Order: sequence, then structure tokens, then C-alpha cells
Amino acid sequence: MRSIEWHNGTVRMIDQRLLPTTFQRLECTSYEDVAEAIRDMAIRGAPAIGAAGAFGMALAARQSQARSRDAILSDLYAAAERLEAARPTAVNLSWAVSRMLQCAERKEDPAAIRDALLEGAQALADEDVEINKRLGEHGASLVQDGDTLLHHCNTGALATVDYGTALGVIRTAHEQGKKIHVLVDETRPRLQGARLTTWELQQLDIPFTLIADNAAGHFLRSGQVNIVLVGADRVAANGDVANKIGTYKLALAAQDNGVPFYPCVPTSTVDLALPSGDEIPIEERPAEEITEVAYRGQPIAPEGIVVANPAFDITPHRYVSGIVTENGIAYPPLALNLRRMVRASS
Amino acid sequence: MRSIEWHNGTVRMIDQRLLPTTFQRLECTSYEDVAEAIRDMAIRGAPAIGAAGAFGMALAARQSQARSRDAILSDLYAAAERLEAARPTAVNLSWAVSRMLQCAERKEDPAAIRDALLEGAQALADEDVEINKRLGEHGASLVQDGDTLLHHCNTGALATVDYGTALGVIRTAHEQGKKIHVLVDETRPRLQGARLTTWELQQLDIPFTLIADNAAGHFLRSGQVNIVLVGADRVAANGDVANKIGTYKLALAAQDNGVPFYPCVPTSTVDLALPSGDEIPIEERPAEEITEVAYRGQPIAPEGIVVANPAFDITPHRYVSGIVTENGIAYPPLALNLRRMVRASS
Repeated sequence: MRSIEWHNGTVRMIDQRLLPTTFQRLECTSYEDVAEAIRDMAIRGAPAIGAAGAFGMALAARQSQARSRDAILSDLYAAAERLEAARPTAVNLSWAVSRMLQCAERKEDPAAIRDALLEGAQALADEDVEINKRLGEHGASLVQDGDTLLHHCNTGALATVDYGTALGVIRTAHEQGKKIHVLVDETRPRLQGARLTTWELQQLDIPFTLIADNAAGHFLRSGQVNIVLVGADRVAANGDVANKIGTYKLALAAQDNGVPFYPCVPTSTVDLALPSGDEIPIEERPAEEITEVAYRGQPIAPEGIVVANPAFDITPHRYVSGIVTENGIAYPPLALNLRRMVRASS
Repeated sequence: MRSIEWHNGTVRMIDQRLLPTTFQRLECTSYEDVAEAIRDMAIRGAPAIGAAGAFGMALAARQSQARSRDAILSDLYAAAERLEAARPTAVNLSWAVSRMLQCAERKEDPAAIRDALLEGAQALADEDVEINKRLGEHGASLVQDGDTLLHHCNTGALATVDYGTALGVIRTAHEQGKKIHVLVDETRPRLQGARLTTWELQQLDIPFTLIADNAAGHFLRSGQVNIVLVGADRVAANGDVANKIGTYKLALAAQDNGVPFYPCVPTSTVDLALPSGDEIPIEERPAEEITEVAYRGQPIAPEGIVVANPAFDITPHRYVSGIVTENGIAYPPLALNLRRMVRASS
């Protein structure tokens, strides 16, 4: 079962806001619905929102009443802007939407464009699964029998179309028969580790321990972790990594203890147009994401206070041991080797 | 108003489990009640639980029916063990309890011992307030007008008898008329930052912004923080610092960005008997502290999963810019200068 798929003329996704308590699907009948689902994180994870953007474009083509090529393209460019604006940090969203616009530009009339966008979105989703499996194979070579792996956020089947990136590596290692244990960062504020990664690991029967993000340093320092695996939302040309808030401190703690730190991404997450992480836009999310959890049934903070909630941070490339992609592992110098990995896809 | 005080033959404390929603006092009529209040964190913060230990000993002396010196001392040694076992990491608890035992040993009969323990506990509590104010003056010299300070956990009036350690420094700087802004780490799992520090800063009218612990690295890296101030639960002779879980990663992020990192402690928190942080016992707290928060009214994790919850971590002394005490600021080499600060008290 995929996190997102085309179903009877709608885009159907697992509503990730309700897990782990409730498994429920959300049906989007318009690209505006898809944009809202991305914005409110019903679907999240860089590769998954890439696929959502592509399917959203296929919906937009269906919604358009245009009878001329120019008119439908105009509708599609408007839809693209709306979809891309849903979340700014992950490059996969604009990458997927741009790819759909290119599909459309190659066709001559509205009917052909509508067909091409649906086919294009389906192909992109199928590719994502295949890419994750290749990525998993490369990454699993880094994992030894008996290892304890530390993981931040959620990078599993839910964060992709299926299988996962960093969690795909963990899954492949497990499928290879390696006995592994996963330390799961709960990942405040949205708790993707506690809510989603634990749920996926449970289903895969991979042993794990949930920890507060604050505890990761303690476990690294006490020698209990062999490798840190994370996903990423955008990787700059120099290897700087934008990923879920907290990744930077985690990378520092890994480095301080000689534990390797590997972001795992499809090459579509690498943005060669950006020289460094300083140019990656950091999304500011609503204050309620911090304050909406309740402690023993009560609010966790006084009402009406000022809250800041950046959703991502930048890990400088000097703390990155290597970047696992579907084409292999890019090692430093990342400015050179990342470019080679991306080229291998084109 | 003090976080803990003697009141009509009982020990009265602010119940910190109910803040910021409810302000309520807890009355302990036995030392067993006090031990339970410490264990369940109705009262927390290294200096505050030191005072609680001292008042608990005064209660134990009252509870004892002993008519001989030996009998009451025997009861007191049993009470001391029970109180000290409530929480293992902060040295202030065993320091205060030992000081009460020394008070008792100096007296000749049960009545004198009972009086001496109450007087001794009162004196220890009064001293704590006076020490914090001196500490605040020393620390405030590090804070410039216009600074943004990052703070982890709660180190305010609630964490001490009154006034606070790191938060006492912030308070002194504010009282000196310096315009400052505090970034408040929410401090998972028990959320002392979100629940208690925000509440104290609001009352003191000091401007602040609440952030997820994970966001601290982002704010440090983007140059928005001038100084990091924390408390500590135990400082080893070499300057290694045991403090609330997450402090170590925070210190790494401060160091990586050239931002000074200062633990602020009374010299009673310095444990010269321990050569390094590796010998400090790290308390493991209940799994429920991680899982008891609710996300949109639902559990944050599947039921019955394995959770690890170390309450403290060790920050190696090489990441410590200096340690603020009531006798001045100890700078590296900490192994030498900490000892001087402690000696200045005796």
C-alpha cells in the first residue's frame, strides 16, 4: 500500500496527522485540496510531497476547462505556483511540479496534456519506489550485523511513495538478516518519529527504542550508536543538508563521538543550483505545532506567548560522512561527488 | 514567595507538576512525603531538592519517637538514605542531607537535634537565596545590553529556594536595565522550559520566545544567540557538567558557532570527589514521561513500545566557557579554578 496514489480520478493518501491512533485515507478531488494536504502535513516527507505535487498537477489538468493548449498551460502554471507554495524547503516538490510542466509543454493539445500528466505522475511515483529500493541496497552496505542505528524524523514508506529512504536502508539491512536496533528520535515538534517511525518499525518487526531528541547526545556519547541515518529535504551543491529541525545538533553529536552521519536521499533532493545551505529557504511553521501537545491533559505553556517554529535546519557538509543516493554513496569532497551522483541519473 | 518553606510543622512547596495551569501548594507532613515529592518532581531543580532534603531531615527528626541520641541518629540515617535515593544525579540532595546529619551529630540529645535540624534547614534555605543573588551578580557581568540568551530547562525561583541560578543571572541582568531577550528551550520530556521558565519570565516581565529544543541549533547557527546559560545538577572536579538531558548537544552547537556556554551553579553543586563526568550516575526516569504528552488529543506513540528516558547528560568540560558560581566565574583550566571557587566558600 502506497502513501499516495491515483484512485478513480482522485488523489488518495494516508492521512499522517491521525497516526498512530487512526489509519484513514484522505481523498483529494482538486489540486487545491492537495496543496492544503501538503501544507497541513496530511502528507509529508520530501519524496512523498514530490509525488503529491505531481498528482496535484494531474488533477489540475483534469480540473481545467481549457480547450486550447495555451489556456490549459496557463491553468497548469497557476496550479504549479499554488502547489509549490505549500511548502518551501523540500526541493522535491518544485522538482516534481516542474517535471510535470515539462511533460505538458511537450504535448500539443489539452487532451494529450491531461493524459501525459497522469502518466507522468504515475511514472514519477513508480520511480520513487524503485529508487528507494536501490538507495536501500547502497545504504545497507554501511550497516553491520549487531549495529544500533539512530534515526531522526520519519523517512519511511510514509515519507516517500513507498519503502523509504533512511528507513529504506534500515529495512534493507533488516531484510538482509542483519540484527539491528533502531533508536528513534521522537522529533519535536510534530513527533514524526514517535508517531510514524515507531508505527512503521512495528509493522516491519524491526526492534526499536523511542527516545526524546534531547537524549540522542547521551546515547552517542556513551558509545551505544554505530551509525546515524537521516533523510533530507534539500541538499545543496556543496553537500550542506537541509533536514528536519534538530538534525544539525544530532550531526554535531555524531561527529563529536566519531559516529558516522549519513543523509539518505534520492538525487532529486540534490539542488545543484544552490551553492550552499545558506541559500535554502527555511520554512517557519505555526506556533500551535509547539503548544498543541498537552501535558497530563493541560496546556504545556501559558497562553498567548511568543513561539518560534523553524521546521528545518542546515547541517554543514563538514559534518556529513557521506550521502546515500540511488546511484551509490557520495563521499567527500561532496561538491565533486554529489554532482557525479546526480549526473548518473540523467 | 519561596518554592519550598517550613510552615506550621510541615514542609510546604509549590507543586511544579501542575504549572503553568494551576498554582497549588503541596504540604508534606512526613519525610516520606518529601522523598515522594522529589521523586515525582513536584519539586525539582538541584538547589530546590537540596533544600527539600534538608527540610525532609527536619521533619524526620520531628517524626522520630526516639528518646536517646543514638536512637534518633539511627532514625535520621535511615531517613537520609530514603531521601537521597529519591533522585541520584543532583549532588545537592546528598550534600544537604549530609549537612543535616553533621548538624545532628554535633548535638547531645533528641530535643537539641530536632531544634538544630530545623534551624539548619532554615539556614540552608536562606543561604540558597543569598548565594543565588551573588551568583546572579557575577553572571550578569557576562550579559550585554541587547543580548539574546538561550536557556535550557528551568533554573529559576522554582528550581531553587528563590531567585534562581542561570535564570537568576538573567533576572539580575534585567534588573540592571539591560534589554535582553530569552530563547526558551521547551526541554522535553518534562517540558520544564515550556511550563515553568515561560511562567517565571512572564511574571518577571522579561521578553522571551519559546522554541522546540531541536530548534536551538538553527538559532545558534544563524547568529541570533549571544550566550547560552544553563544550570547543572552536578559538576565534576574536572569541570564536566551533568545537567538536564539535551544540554550536551546544546553545548556542542554553542561551541560550533563560537557562542559562549556557561553553566551557573552554587558551589554546593560542584562534587570535587568525582574526577570526571563519567562517574556521575545518570538517572533513568519512567517511560511515561516521554509518552504521556498527547498530540491533538491522541497518544503520541503506539502502545506498549520500548522507551528509554535518561534524565541527564554529561557535557565534557572542553565545551564549557566558564562556570558561574556565587564566588565568581571559574574559567579554564576548570580543574584548578573550580577548586579555588569551592575553597572560597569554606
